[in-house]
Amino acid sequence: MNAEFIWNDVVALRAKGPLVHNITNYVVMNNTANALLALGASPVMAHAVEEVEEMVGVAAAVGGALVVNIGTLSGLWIDAMHRAMAAAAKAGLPIVLDPVGAGATAYRTQTCRALLQTARPAVIRGNASEIMALLDASVQTKGVDSSAGSDAAAEPARRLASKLGCVVSLSGETDFVTDGQAGHRGSNGHVLMTRVTGLGCTASALTGAFLAVRADPLVAAAHAMAVLGIAGELAAEKAEGPGTLQLHLYDALYTLTRDEIERRLRWT
Amino acid sequence: MNAEFIWNDVVALRAKGPLVHNITNYVVMNNTANALLALGASPVMAHAVEEVEEMVGVAAAVGGALVVNIGTLSGLWIDAMHRAMAAAAKAGLPIVLDPVGAGATAYRTQTCRALLQTARPAVIRGNASEIMALLDASVQTKGVDSSAGSDAAAEPARRLASKLGCVVSLSGETDFVTDGQAGHRGSNGHVLMTRVTGLGCTASALTGAFLAVRADPLVAAAHAMAVLGIAGELAAEKAEGPGTLQLHLYDALYTLTRDEIERRLRWT
Amino acid sequence: MNAEFIWNDVVALRAKGPLVHNITNYVVMNNTANALLALGASPVMAHAVEEVEEMVGVAAAVGGALVVNIGTLSGLWIDAMHRAMAAAAKAGLPIVLDPVGAGATAYRTQTCRALLQTARPAVIRGNASEIMALLDASVQTKGVDSSAGSDAAAEPARRLASKLGCVVSLSGETDFVTDGQAGHRGSNGHVLMTRVTGLGCTASALTGAFLAVRADPLVAAAHAMAVLGIAGELAAEKAEGPGTLQLHLYDALYTLTRDEIERRLRWT
Repeated sequence: MNAEFIWNDVVALRAKGPLVHNITNYVVMNNTANALLALGASPVMAHAVEEVEEMVGVAAAVGGALVVNIGTLSGLWIDAMHRAMAAAAKAGLPIVLDPVGAGATAYRTQTCRALLQTARPAVIRGNASEIMALLDASVQTKGVDSSAGSDAAAEPARRLASKLGCVVSLSGETDFVTDGQAGHRGSNGHVLMTRVTGLGCTASALTGAFLAVRADPLVAAAHAMAVLGIAGELAAEKAEGPGTLQLHLYDALYTLTRDEIERRLRWT
Repeated sequence: MNAEFIWNDVVALRAKGPLVHNITNYVVMNNTANALLALGASPVMAHAVEEVEEMVGVAAAVGGALVVNIGTLSGLWIDAMHRAMAAAAKAGLPIVLDPVGAGATAYRTQTCRALLQTARPAVIRGNASEIMALLDASVQTKGVDSSAGSDAAAEPARRLASKLGCVVSLSGETDFVTDGQAGHRGSNGHVLMTRVTGLGCTASALTGAFLAVRADPLVAAAHAMAVLGIAGELAAEKAEGPGTLQLHLYDALYTLTRDEIERRLRWT
Repeated sequence: MNAEFIWNDVVALRAKGPLVHNITNYVVMNNTANALLALGASPVMAHAVEEVEEMVGVAAAVGGALVVNIGTLSGLWIDAMHRAMAAAAKAGLPIVLDPVGAGATAYRTQTCRALLQTARPAVIRGNASEIMALLDASVQTKGVDSSAGSDAAAEPARRLASKLGCVVSLSGETDFVTDGQAGHRGSNGHVLMTRVTGLGCTASALTGAFLAVRADPLVAAAHAMAVLGIAGELAAEKAEGPGTLQLHLYDALYTLTRDEIERRLRWT
């Protein structure tokens, strides 16, 4: 991976301010909106069945993305997710799906599978447990934190990408992004990030933002993970714990420079 | 505008701790509760149709305010907003309406118009796009961030206030508060505030707090905008980006002094 | 109370990372997830009636806890709370109930009473107004902040605990934890904590975490309150207001040492 190309995307994002339509969970709405704003995107949260298709149309008209995250799913929200994904597919708006907690309950696993029937996302962004549960419904996991290491999930990620014809972005100690054939592997980030809620969801939201300025979803997904990881490292240097980390992370996304990307990038 | 009168309101707020009943969006509930607490008010969030009228009654009994914000609206929430606004109008509890995303989807524009049929708010607080969409339903906007500058919306704000018989508080690079005749214009604030989600919603919530200690809605709305803008400037001096800005903003609301208001006030 | 025993629980929490299933309010979901992560627990938020019983089963299988908080209750959420509490009682998973705003509206008071019919919590954690309203439905309070001092509620807390056969954890200037007979009283904490939204809810969530490593609910509840209070004091020393306090609080939970507990513990 190339630091210059990442930087070009960051510059494009700050210039364009793409509209990222999020149908996401209650826990992280504030975080992901702040991360998108800090990076330069324009977030909107809208989940009512009465308006999601129209909001998708607004995002499609200006060249944005749709991010669907099932973290605190319930019936009406799932209806809205189906409608929004169908409308996005029709309008050519790229979709990111974050299968939070797939494998923890049958409801979550089945919801993801049904959503994948409705429309093909450009990128599925999840942790090892979630990716393995999407590939094989018999995988059981504990809550929303991964029970498996990301290395063990690299091959399942590749198979899932191949099966679905989309990019799978697997986050963990090592990040791995694959379209089933090619792949990028990266190790930016900091262990303190696992003690802040919703940074996986933030990764998904930023992936949406990069999809709005970069047509190739494999590259967009990798750029998003690299930028979040680098911002996390910068934040960790100033932080005394997970509380201050989160705030410095938004600052780092806002102030990120080409030099910081070049010095720190650890992706192949 | 007079710094001493603003300071008197801040003192009154800290002494009284008025109950501000919020029916607001998922993204900002935490932020607005924290901003209200930092300023000295007592926030409550309640949206169930089974209890909103009773909660309005509690707020009316102690002299508070109702803040209705449609940022993540859906069917049941809209029912609750109508009930709460009707009860507030009957009880004489001042209402602030924040038309988040009006103009972005027909659902949002129509919901605002219907709410305005139910009860007349003391203050409508919105950005340029939202105010223009309320005046003229044919105005289309992109997401929840304004597509228009606040100067272009000053005349629409005046006409909307005149038409509805309420105060319109228009936020942007320049803030403009008007009852259709008189008006105040201010330029406190900092550009970094546009990179933190929900500060418009926070402005609406603080407007509710000031309405609880200041009978004239034109003055209350202007005081709220001035205080938030000044707190934002104080926070920006300590912040390294939008993440740290948000935290210092709560601190600044909590520690705000008469001297800070006097030195910084830029309202006419 | 013994600092060494508290420290042992913190060590056990960090080692085990127990799953704490929260059905909680929109305002604090992010805060409580972050506080649980900072302390070393693994939070999950799930409220859909389709999955709460299964998620309770996951938490029971690994030895966690269920935390039910009615802060922004509505119909479907209440259904989920009943289902989850019934499943938890059956599976032997300890329950914490946080009766946010009981006494403010009849809906809240009645919902708590109905939930207490469904299952007996290990711990009820509330402020003075809430505890008094649970004991005597005729008590009226203002919003979600307590109208009564915690000393006045000590006897009601004891009676409620005795009546229900559970532990009552009463928070306020003085914290008081009782099973109806024995009790512990503590005064850790800092006044600035009352200006941050959701720290009562955070206390309830941490109580769930301690229940996952400490069988005696009286001790678990007291340990949770002591740890939050001490972390709050540590945070207050670095904070300039309620905004920075909240972030330093997560840091303090993450970095908490045995020495800090020993030096600061003020519980009998």
